[in-house]
Amino acid sequence: MEKYYFGIDIGGTELKFGMFDGTKKLVKTLRKQTPTENVRFELAEIIYVVVNEMLNEQGADVQQLGGIGITVPGPVARGIVIFCSNIDMGRNFDIVSAVKHRFGIASLPVVVGNDANLAAYGEYRNLNNSYIRNLVFVTLGTGIGGGIIVDGKILEGVSGSSGEIGHIPYVYGKNRVCGCGQKDCIESVAGTFGMIQTAKELMVKEKSSMENLEITPKVIFDHAKAGDLVALQVADSVAQAIAMMAVTISVIVDPEVYLIGGGVSKAGDFLIQKINYHYQQHARFDTSAARFELARLGNDAGFYGAFYYLLDNL
Amino acid sequence: MEKYYFGIDIGGTELKFGMFDGTKKLVKTLRKQTPTENVRFELAEIIYVVVNEMLNEQGADVQQLGGIGITVPGPVARGIVIFCSNIDMGRNFDIVSAVKHRFGIASLPVVVGNDANLAAYGEYRNLNNSYIRNLVFVTLGTGIGGGIIVDGKILEGVSGSSGEIGHIPYVYGKNRVCGCGQKDCIESVAGTFGMIQTAKELMVKEKSSMENLEITPKVIFDHAKAGDLVALQVADSVAQAIAMMAVTISVIVDPEVYLIGGGVSKAGDFLIQKINYHYQQHARFDTSAARFELARLGNDAGFYGAFYYLLDNL
Repeated sequence: MEKYYFGIDIGGTELKFGMFDGTKKLVKTLRKQTPTENVRFELAEIIYVVVNEMLNEQGADVQQLGGIGITVPGPVARGIVIFCSNIDMGRNFDIVSAVKHRFGIASLPVVVGNDANLAAYGEYRNLNNSYIRNLVFVTLGTGIGGGIIVDGKILEGVSGSSGEIGHIPYVYGKNRVCGCGQKDCIESVAGTFGMIQTAKELMVKEKSSMENLEITPKVIFDHAKAGDLVALQVADSVAQAIAMMAVTISVIVDPEVYLIGGGVSKAGDFLIQKINYHYQQHARFDTSAARFELARLGNDAGFYGAFYYLLDNL
Repeated sequence: MEKYYFGIDIGGTELKFGMFDGTKKLVKTLRKQTPTENVRFELAEIIYVVVNEMLNEQGADVQQLGGIGITVPGPVARGIVIFCSNIDMGRNFDIVSAVKHRFGIASLPVVVGNDANLAAYGEYRNLNNSYIRNLVFVTLGTGIGGGIIVDGKILEGVSGSSGEIGHIPYVYGKNRVCGCGQKDCIESVAGTFGMIQTAKELMVKEKSSMENLEITPKVIFDHAKAGDLVALQVADSVAQAIAMMAVTISVIVDPEVYLIGGGVSKAGDFLIQKINYHYQQHARFDTSAARFELARLGNDAGFYGAFYYLLDNL
């Protein structure tokens, strides 16, 4: 009897479902809106309903369900979701038990992890390269997050704050307040709001082809590629912040490779080359050998990671 | 037939031997000078001779040798000593094979690791607290080093540069050159030379009870405890640097506890309290729960760690 496995990426606005068969092949995907009320109950309910629907469409039933892997956008420690700042599920939600309970199958394999950690795991397993056992996945977007793989395992930490690499204190932070409540985090320079702030500060003093446009990361990187000097300075400040973040991580974790993902990574090799340039100027000891590459799974990294994490913990 | 196990801490000036019995009890210790010529050959030779001597004094012989754990003061990756800056053994020394070869026992269990990593492991195993699985050991001295335990295992990294936490870039580094060749490392403020430099800079401008004394870390902390305002500023700058180092490590590795060791840790609770004060000001998210404690094994941490690492890899 063929078994099916689900990776479910719970985000602030939508849930992404990935259904896999026993050969690790992605069978189909589906998206649903994230519930905003009665969230603990509704999350388990949506997962129950959608998983059953997807199984039925495949001519299968719940007896063929091999397990469910789940990501959440918040810290997780020892299987408990500590909190999610953009989903109202309160503190210390035992989502694993909630899902098992809704299915009425106590022995159903269900695992949960932080979204960036599991995206890192998805990218790691997708590399399928036995020479790489230590990897840092960096997600560049509104926030800057990451996941760390050490010797093939997710580095989870005790309070679920491992991989919160956007909040590394930054040498050139210029006393900027960060969303986390502290000052001078990498994110305050290289996150979306940080880079827009840098652009606006520069445009007060210098002419730019970005004048009269709504400044977004895409506008900044497009104009930087076209040679606008202000946009180039902003792009460089972002690359330098990410590079110093990696210099820091390298003397602590010492990985083989940094995979750069998230919306801002659409700037592509232009960004990767700038990061690598600054990294090489500052890397300590033999950590200069670390490589920077674009992540490969895009928005699917979360549910792929949840699936692989499930599979490797069966 | 009773088995004996050796932990050997190879330092720049001396080798420390710890001999343990099968009940994990330390039987005896011995120190020898570190060879300076023909080092690869002589290290294996000294280890062979001393281990045999110590066995014989115990009325035992080499057949009762259960294994040897070794620390070196340099990066180690996959059992190979990449280099040691203060022992002339060249690059990529396979000390494990050299020792096995000298004993003529191919099956002899021999392991090697970086000294700070194994000291961390020694402190970790010595805690013997099943609630603590993630720990950072910090050694404060001429240099600032460390070792990281994640989920009960040494975080080794790919180039042996993990735990080189003294070289984290530091927000308040003031453009100081570091021994590693880069600028603005934590060590350039909180290492011995860094704190002496800070003291001298301050003493040009301010009166101090340290005038006419040779400035050492001990003098600085003794005078800080006695209330000298310059010494207090230096002590505070050191504590702040160590605290920001820990803030950084916490968003990457997220450990339960930081154990502070090394010569400068003799400043005791006076230092620990200052570090914790600054850490609490800047810790991100739930990482404020991490604790700071004095390390417990002192100069013996290295050979204890080498012994435990051997034992856990038999």
